[in-house]
Amino acid sequence: MVLRPLFSPLAGLLFALAAAMEVPALFDYIVHNKEWEAFQMSAIVTLFTGLALFLVRDRDSSHFSLKHGYLFTVACWILLPLYAALPFYWSSQDMTFTDAVFETISGLTTTGATILTGLEHLPPGILLWRALLQWIGGIGIVVMAISIFPVLKTGGMQLFKLESSETAGKIFPRIQDIAIGVFAIYSGLTILCALIYYSEGMGTFDAIVHAMTTLSTGGFSTTDQSFAAFPDKGIIWTGSIFMFLGSVPFSLMLFSMKKRQWSLFFLDSQVQIYAAFVCVVSFICAYLYYENSGAQDFFTALTLATFNVISVITTTGYAFEDYSLWGTFAPVLFFFLTFVGGCSGSTAGGVKMFRFHVLWLSCLQQLRRLIYPNGIFLQKIEGKPLNNELSQSVLIYIFMLIISFAVISTCLSFTGLDFTTALSGAATALSNVGPGLGSIIGPAGNFQSLPDSAKWILDIGMILGRLEYVTIIVLLQPRFWHY
Amino acid sequence: MVLRPLFSPLAGLLFALAAAMEVPALFDYIVHNKEWEAFQMSAIVTLFTGLALFLVRDRDSSHFSLKHGYLFTVACWILLPLYAALPFYWSSQDMTFTDAVFETISGLTTTGATILTGLEHLPPGILLWRALLQWIGGIGIVVMAISIFPVLKTGGMQLFKLESSETAGKIFPRIQDIAIGVFAIYSGLTILCALIYYSEGMGTFDAIVHAMTTLSTGGFSTTDQSFAAFPDKGIIWTGSIFMFLGSVPFSLMLFSMKKRQWSLFFLDSQVQIYAAFVCVVSFICAYLYYENSGAQDFFTALTLATFNVISVITTTGYAFEDYSLWGTFAPVLFFFLTFVGGCSGSTAGGVKMFRFHVLWLSCLQQLRRLIYPNGIFLQKIEGKPLNNELSQSVLIYIFMLIISFAVISTCLSFTGLDFTTALSGAATALSNVGPGLGSIIGPAGNFQSLPDSAKWILDIGMILGRLEYVTIIVLLQPRFWHY
Repeated sequence: MVLRPLFSPLAGLLFALAAAMEVPALFDYIVHNKEWEAFQMSAIVTLFTGLALFLVRDRDSSHFSLKHGYLFTVACWILLPLYAALPFYWSSQDMTFTDAVFETISGLTTTGATILTGLEHLPPGILLWRALLQWIGGIGIVVMAISIFPVLKTGGMQLFKLESSETAGKIFPRIQDIAIGVFAIYSGLTILCALIYYSEGMGTFDAIVHAMTTLSTGGFSTTDQSFAAFPDKGIIWTGSIFMFLGSVPFSLMLFSMKKRQWSLFFLDSQVQIYAAFVCVVSFICAYLYYENSGAQDFFTALTLATFNVISVITTTGYAFEDYSLWGTFAPVLFFFLTFVGGCSGSTAGGVKMFRFHVLWLSCLQQLRRLIYPNGIFLQKIEGKPLNNELSQSVLIYIFMLIISFAVISTCLSFTGLDFTTALSGAATALSNVGPGLGSIIGPAGNFQSLPDSAKWILDIGMILGRLEYVTIIVLLQPRFWHY
Repeated sequence: MVLRPLFSPLAGLLFALAAAMEVPALFDYIVHNKEWEAFQMSAIVTLFTGLALFLVRDRDSSHFSLKHGYLFTVACWILLPLYAALPFYWSSQDMTFTDAVFETISGLTTTGATILTGLEHLPPGILLWRALLQWIGGIGIVVMAISIFPVLKTGGMQLFKLESSETAGKIFPRIQDIAIGVFAIYSGLTILCALIYYSEGMGTFDAIVHAMTTLSTGGFSTTDQSFAAFPDKGIIWTGSIFMFLGSVPFSLMLFSMKKRQWSLFFLDSQVQIYAAFVCVVSFICAYLYYENSGAQDFFTALTLATFNVISVITTTGYAFEDYSLWGTFAPVLFFFLTFVGGCSGSTAGGVKMFRFHVLWLSCLQQLRRLIYPNGIFLQKIEGKPLNNELSQSVLIYIFMLIISFAVISTCLSFTGLDFTTALSGAATALSNVGPGLGSIIGPAGNFQSLPDSAKWILDIGMILGRLEYVTIIVLLQPRFWHY
């Protein structure tokens, strides 16, 4: 049976998921909340499924081929949400299966679109579980981006291949090496973020939950007001800085730390371009906000503008206030920022900076060739020559993004959503941002009122975006299934 | 002086423009309308500018380099609209300079967005001039797409290169060869269209004007109601068919005719894919329209849906009725259809079918390579092998389209336009369609009320789209200007 090589790693992930479920179970048990039973039951079901897979696993890891790499990646993001949704479904919150799965996929993909309202009154276990999902999803995507995507050549990620090995069988030993280091950094930053939030006046629980959803660039909060419940400038800047840290390459941080050469990090072209872009856009936004909406002073405008810009670019999606009130420019600008994304190998979604860099260099190269047809123009990116295969991969990624965007927007419009909701809904799902635009799903809105069909379409969009299209679309070829 | 080689061809075009101005001048003179003086004065100014350029021209045509090819193409579409706008500016219609230029660029680029209202009460010379602008712009772009774009390799147009010569100096003799044939077909189809419109009950003047704006896929009309003023099914189907004919490759028609082999035309992959796409989308639209809006019978729904779909895909932009009333799907679907466009070498704007075909084949090729890294997969398009240079050109075109779309939408939003108006305005300008979405510039609206700055931004968009981005962006490189 061709799927058997997947069972062993999938079982491992299910064990980890079951273990994660014990955290909110224990927490709810300690605070005497009946909800702990839902978590305990989900943990048992997840554990037993994992055990079953483990027992029928393929013991020979050499059977794990390149094709299994694709299948494993996709299987993770379809199977895990179904199990992770069980606590929501079995909780006392009366969530439908559709809503439970939507909330889980939105969590694991670090999107942060929510169907829950009255967050303040929810059992703390549920709030903790939502944050944990994003935190797990965040480290999950970082590990995948470092280890699997480069081998699968997902949208130009071969640029970040760590060694020249082409065989997928060598993925797993390397995952362990890097994953431990990256996990340590990720956890360390989360704890640091929580401590700073706490020292600035957030409650302990709020600080922990927000730290987890900040570093994972997820965006789930403990209140319906999201970050507007914490209007302290210090907290806002802390959030901005740690969202930014969640959207830069973790492996680069690891290497810079190991070699004690921080210049490696700060001189990286992707990080430089990204930081410059964030600064420029924040300043423009702050200026326009200050001019149009009469903020008290420029620093306040800059604080709010930077927070909102970073929240969208890093694909976190914390709402602060409805920026459509800032002027007509804001919805259009934020719509396009939705697609930008952070750096590769971070928890951020979206197109990501290195792809724009590759496209920009390809453009320059071709424009020069048009004037000097016989000239030879070499471009370098991340210290490697820009070859045709790389720019082709990136451009195909963009093409698939456009097609996915068009198809998902149109499908959403068939379910009855209006122009702004359909377009921004598709964009926010594909980029894993969170809130869209307009009165329904905008920063002041909620996904609850959407029809079920729209929620399932958005589920597909979130997973497509998180797995960067290619990984999934490869499976749709009949040729893939010829063994 | 480096620009001198451009003078001779530009002078020729100005002479032709002056001659074209004599048509409405004569017409207004015959019907005793004072407006003829504005046309006569414009013709004289245009003629004298042409003469001045002609006198200082460079007599040695071998000085005309590849760079002059780019400069000439861009110069045409900036200089000609300024002169062609004079009759509007000097007419009794009290048009501002901004409005006159907008209407002219919208005409020459065959966009069809208008700032004029009360068309029924305008002097016939003005209406004729608007139609003539579109008709001239239509044949202009066909000739450019056949002769200049392939040499300049604009967005993959090298696929349609007629010979292997790389030197731009050979452009002009070939233009004459093909232009005469294509011009004959274009004129013939226009006359045929006018005769059919007339036989179906349109007035003589309406039939002539609409025939000119149908074949050029322009979309200017003689009434504010646009095609809704002619609710006859025969007229609507005639319009649909001739818009479609205006959006297929004219050179292919010419070759098929010359060789008396119509199979060449019908078996062309681009024409086949295009026709199939139009049929499928029209049927889906007709079905949804019939289900949602309760049209009397399916044939009526099909008639209206086909007309509106073809009007947008061919980038004509005749309004029939406000399709946003058909259901929430319509604005979103039509927004994406705005980008599609017709075939290469036609009067249609937009991305065009062959580019989608190239992208699709590139995608397939790459997806196969991902599964079989050592496999060799050859794809053919239009009988030629799909090489890297070709797919690269097309993908760069798409990238520039996206950047232009994002920049123009954002600039429009800075002038105060709302989300729907800004996005659909940018899309409709770049694709040269005409009407956008929403209450302001939608099928039932008008561009008059936009701020002047928005009109200039749209002017840039229309020219960028018509010249397929690359032709213009090449000029922005400092390197281009090194002689």
